[in-house]
Amino acid sequence: MNFQQKLNKILKKNNSLLCIGLDPDLEKFPKHILKSADPIFIFNKSIIDETFNLVYAYKPNIAFYEAYGLKGLKSLEKTIQYLKKKYPDIPIILDAKRADIGNTAKMYAKAIFEYWGVDATTVYPYLGLDSVVPFLEYKNQCTILLIRTSNPDAKTFQDLKINGEPFYMQLANEIKKWKFENIGVFVGATYPDELVKVRKLFPDSPILTAGLGVQGAQTKKAVQAGVDKKGQNLICNNSREIIYAGSNKDFVLKSRLKAIEIRDIIESYRS
Amino acid sequence: MNFQQKLNKILKKNNSLLCIGLDPDLEKFPKHILKSADPIFIFNKSIIDETFNLVYAYKPNIAFYEAYGLKGLKSLEKTIQYLKKKYPDIPIILDAKRADIGNTAKMYAKAIFEYWGVDATTVYPYLGLDSVVPFLEYKNQCTILLIRTSNPDAKTFQDLKINGEPFYMQLANEIKKWKFENIGVFVGATYPDELVKVRKLFPDSPILTAGLGVQGAQTKKAVQAGVDKKGQNLICNNSREIIYAGSNKDFVLKSRLKAIEIRDIIESYRS
Repeated sequence: MNFQQKLNKILKKNNSLLCIGLDPDLEKFPKHILKSADPIFIFNKSIIDETFNLVYAYKPNIAFYEAYGLKGLKSLEKTIQYLKKKYPDIPIILDAKRADIGNTAKMYAKAIFEYWGVDATTVYPYLGLDSVVPFLEYKNQCTILLIRTSNPDAKTFQDLKINGEPFYMQLANEIKKWKFENIGVFVGATYPDELVKVRKLFPDSPILTAGLGVQGAQTKKAVQAGVDKKGQNLICNNSREIIYAGSNKDFVLKSRLKAIEIRDIIESYRS
Repeated sequence: MNFQQKLNKILKKNNSLLCIGLDPDLEKFPKHILKSADPIFIFNKSIIDETFNLVYAYKPNIAFYEAYGLKGLKSLEKTIQYLKKKYPDIPIILDAKRADIGNTAKMYAKAIFEYWGVDATTVYPYLGLDSVVPFLEYKNQCTILLIRTSNPDAKTFQDLKINGEPFYMQLANEIKKWKFENIGVFVGATYPDELVKVRKLFPDSPILTAGLGVQGAQTKKAVQAGVDKKGQNLICNNSREIIYAGSNKDFVLKSRLKAIEIRDIIESYRS
C-alpha cells in the first residue's frame, strides 16, 4: 500500500486530518517519566496509546532524537517499531529535512526509507531534481518537498521576487513539472494565501502543514485553503500544544483532550 | 581553540589544504575489511593512520553512516572519538547539511556540536538567519553555509536571476550582512568563477570546496580562485578518489599515495 492509500484508509477509520508531532524534549517532560529507563520511548508510547484513534499520521522530527545521540535514536527506533507493530494503519512521516547530491542523497534515502522504514519524509528541493530523485525512487513512499517554511526569517530568501513571483512559487512551479506521483509538499499554516496557490498547482497531492492549533481564525483559513476538492489530503501537524498539554501524571489525558479539541476544530472547517 | 585557530595550527604542521572525506560505502570496501566486527571504523582508522600528516581536516558525511542505521552511527562515534584522542590537532567537519526552524534547529545544533562534538558542520541558509543562529551560537565551532552546490541540477534554483544576479549570490550577499565571525561557506570546485566572487565577499572566512582531484586544470582554477590573500583557508575536500584508490589489502598505501598526489597538486597552485 502506498502513502496516499494509507492516508485514505486511516481517514475513513479516524475521520481526522490531525498529525501529531512526536518531538521529545526532556526539559518539557513530566518529572515522573524521567525516572524510567527509556523516557523518550515511554513518553511517545503513552501519547500514541491515547491518540491513535484521533490521528491522520504521526510525525517524529529526527532532530529531537539526534540531540540525545545514539540513545535518542534508539528511542526513535523503538517508537517506529511500536507504531508499525501495534498501529500498522497509521502513516509515519519522519521529518528529517534532508538534502544532498548524487550518491549522498541515495544514502539519506536509504537511511530513511530502508533503515527507519517510514512512509514519508521531508526533503529540501533547493539542489534541484537530481538531488531529489533518489528519494522519489521509493515509489510507495512519499517525499514531501518544502516549499515555504513558517519561521519569521523565511521571507529573506523564500519571498525574493523573480519575474514578479516569489522564489517559493518558482520552486512550486518547477516541482510541478517533475511529474512524480509520490511527491508531497510542505507549506506553513501561517501562510494561507500561499497554501491556496500551492493547492491549485497540486490539486491531488498530500500537503503537509504545521502551525495549526486552537487559534481558530488561523486554523480556519489554513484548512479551507489547504484541503483538496474532497476536503482531505491536508496533513495538519501539531506537536507542542498536544504533547506538552500537561506536565504531571495526568499528561496523557490532557494530551488526548487537546488532540480531540484540535481535531474537532480542523473537522469543523474541512467540510 | 576555535576552528580558525585549529586550521592555522594544522596548516603549519601539515602544509596541506587537503580535506579527506570519510564516506564509508560497504560496497566499495576491500573484501577483507568486511570480515571485521566493525568494518566502517576499521576502514576509517586505516585511512586516518596513513594520512594524518597530509591533511588540513577530515570530513565525515553523516549520510554514509545513517544509511547503516544505529550500527553505522556507532562507527561514526568511534571514528570521531579516535580522531579526537589520537589526532586532537586535526579539525573535524561533520558534513550534515542540516536546516530547520527555531527549536528544531537548536536540537540539530546540539546534536552536532555537543553530542558529536565536532569543530564544524554544514548548514543550508535557505530558511534565513533565525534558522542558522542556533548553530552560530557555538562560537568556537564553524557553521559552513552552502552557497552553491556542484551537482548538474543545482542551476535550476541556485542560478535563477534576481535583479541581474544569480540566487546563490543573493544568499552570499545576505550572509555577508549577518556578520558572525564563525561563518564559513561552501562553493563547489566545479564553479571557479563563483569561487572568485564568494572569496571577494568573504576575504577571511574558511571556504569549503569539493570536487578537487587529480584533474589538474580544474583544481588549478579552483585553488587559485578560492584561497585567501595568504594562500590558505580553502578546505579542499576529496573523498572517493582517495579512500577508494585501492580495493585490496594494499588499499591504505594506495590511499596514502593518492592523498600525497592530490595534496601536492593543490600545493603547487596555492602559492
